[in-house]
Amino acid sequence: MKVKDIGEFGLLEKLKLFCPDGVVGDDGAILATDPRKSLVVTTDVLVDRVHFSDRTTRAFDVGWRAAAANLSDLAAMGATPLGITVGLSLPGEIAVSWVEELYRGISSCLDRYHTPIVGGDICRSSVVSIAITAFGEVFPHRAIRRGNARPGDAIVITGEHGLSKAGLELLLDPSLGTNLNSIERDSLIKAHQRPVPRLDVVSVLEKLAPDVAIAGMDSSDGLADAIAQICHCSGLGAEIQLSALKIFPALEKLAGPETALNWMLYGGEDFQLVLCLPRAIASALVEYLGTTATIIGKTTTTSEILITDNDNIAPPQILNLTKGFQHF
Amino acid sequence: MKVKDIGEFGLLEKLKLFCPDGVVGDDGAILATDPRKSLVVTTDVLVDRVHFSDRTTRAFDVGWRAAAANLSDLAAMGATPLGITVGLSLPGEIAVSWVEELYRGISSCLDRYHTPIVGGDICRSSVVSIAITAFGEVFPHRAIRRGNARPGDAIVITGEHGLSKAGLELLLDPSLGTNLNSIERDSLIKAHQRPVPRLDVVSVLEKLAPDVAIAGMDSSDGLADAIAQICHCSGLGAEIQLSALKIFPALEKLAGPETALNWMLYGGEDFQLVLCLPRAIASALVEYLGTTATIIGKTTTTSEILITDNDNIAPPQILNLTKGFQHF
Repeated sequence: MKVKDIGEFGLLEKLKLFCPDGVVGDDGAILATDPRKSLVVTTDVLVDRVHFSDRTTRAFDVGWRAAAANLSDLAAMGATPLGITVGLSLPGEIAVSWVEELYRGISSCLDRYHTPIVGGDICRSSVVSIAITAFGEVFPHRAIRRGNARPGDAIVITGEHGLSKAGLELLLDPSLGTNLNSIERDSLIKAHQRPVPRLDVVSVLEKLAPDVAIAGMDSSDGLADAIAQICHCSGLGAEIQLSALKIFPALEKLAGPETALNWMLYGGEDFQLVLCLPRAIASALVEYLGTTATIIGKTTTTSEILITDNDNIAPPQILNLTKGFQHF
Repeated sequence: MKVKDIGEFGLLEKLKLFCPDGVVGDDGAILATDPRKSLVVTTDVLVDRVHFSDRTTRAFDVGWRAAAANLSDLAAMGATPLGITVGLSLPGEIAVSWVEELYRGISSCLDRYHTPIVGGDICRSSVVSIAITAFGEVFPHRAIRRGNARPGDAIVITGEHGLSKAGLELLLDPSLGTNLNSIERDSLIKAHQRPVPRLDVVSVLEKLAPDVAIAGMDSSDGLADAIAQICHCSGLGAEIQLSALKIFPALEKLAGPETALNWMLYGGEDFQLVLCLPRAIASALVEYLGTTATIIGKTTTTSEILITDNDNIAPPQILNLTKGFQHF
């Protein structure tokens, strides 16, 4: 069945069934919040053929990624989620089963974090678009901000970078990666289709550094972009150790060391966190998170972001954000 | 200049200039809230050629109406606004001046209520769509809900109904309304282009009835729909006095008494409030608001919504929501 066959009058009513919390189309939701915390709000719009495509992403994964991207924005501010709203524009030609799968994807991601869909709107359009607004809460003094970095802070990245880009490339061109085994291949594709927002890191930081103002953001627009944004907002520079940028083995196997490093820095959509914090706390965080976090460098009082080669064979390169990673 | 000429890389940065709070495209906003209150969230999606059209609505008015609709949803829950997010999808062909005017319209409406745009996202699409999420706060015991009505409550409507529909008809067909003078004409068109959310009523109710659970919603989908939704959610019926449904003079002059009553009940988009509350409070509210509010009937323990003719010439009619207003 197609959306247009539901009929104008009952569209919202019928589509409510897909929304487990049953509030799509209502005036809105009323939510209790922690009176000690501030409200955090973030919003994202995803458009068919701009942000997703049937070629690479099933409806379930479109929903998962949309929810994950918004939860990642909350994590990037040190917040815990309260709920999301979903504003959906749908052409009449779209299959109802596609919409059901989309909601299943959104809900599956949210359920991991006990986060409800608390409102929404559905309307007709000639193109599918998904507007999600997520809100969460954070103790004001614990909010993670881009401008909070101090000189000499350690720069920590969580998880792996470049995998989402590699997964996308594999989906776009199935003839790639014939040298990968199925586990390697799946790990890259899964990184693209089912990114995991790092709300776990928020909980860890709450324990390790309850009273420290931390700088950070997520790496949704790329690792290099995140470093540059934090440095820019904090009025600092940075020194990144090339040797600390460990490339995920399957990524290097697929793309070779140079392209792999490029994807790691500029690929984007990995939804990891980039944090700047005092070295002792950074070390404790890395120890706690294990192999899924690395100290890659430190902030400096210069205005440049340098990538330094440990062996000092080459002079340090200045990170160039607009043109992609340059050969050393 | 067209949006596509801004270039992909700088699109967000440039468009930030239109957003007075300068946070479009950032991770999100952190807001202080009243610790005694609950959070209220509501969301709306407007799509070009579905919800607005160049034929009848300039960009400024599209923005105004989008903001007003969301603030009206907050008013309908008894909440005061904290902020909104704006998720904008834009074709490359659209003029940058159109986007500037849109933001001016949104901001002009918000400024009346000291409400900031606290976040947003802008992306490319083949069709213009505007997804707004508004959030506000309310004392939990003062939240207005559809299901709060009790038998015998007075039904109060604020403002005028049917004017937005009349204004739209005038805009769609300029040959209509030749019998109207320019003040009458403008009052109808303005009702359509610049609806005013009834947040003022929320403040009045706070004074008049600080501890009463009030039922209500806004009349964005029509006066008849609002009455029916409140009755349905409260498990009640209603009796409406035909004589209390006072038709705005210019509306009757334009459309004649029968069509005018039809537009009043079913036209929609007037963004007024329909409230059910104890008679003494209803009378005090009407006295306070003056001619801009009317008691139109009462809730009953039946399951029907009857419209009664004072003269008892005709038997009461059952309100029919799906087919438009029937002749008495």
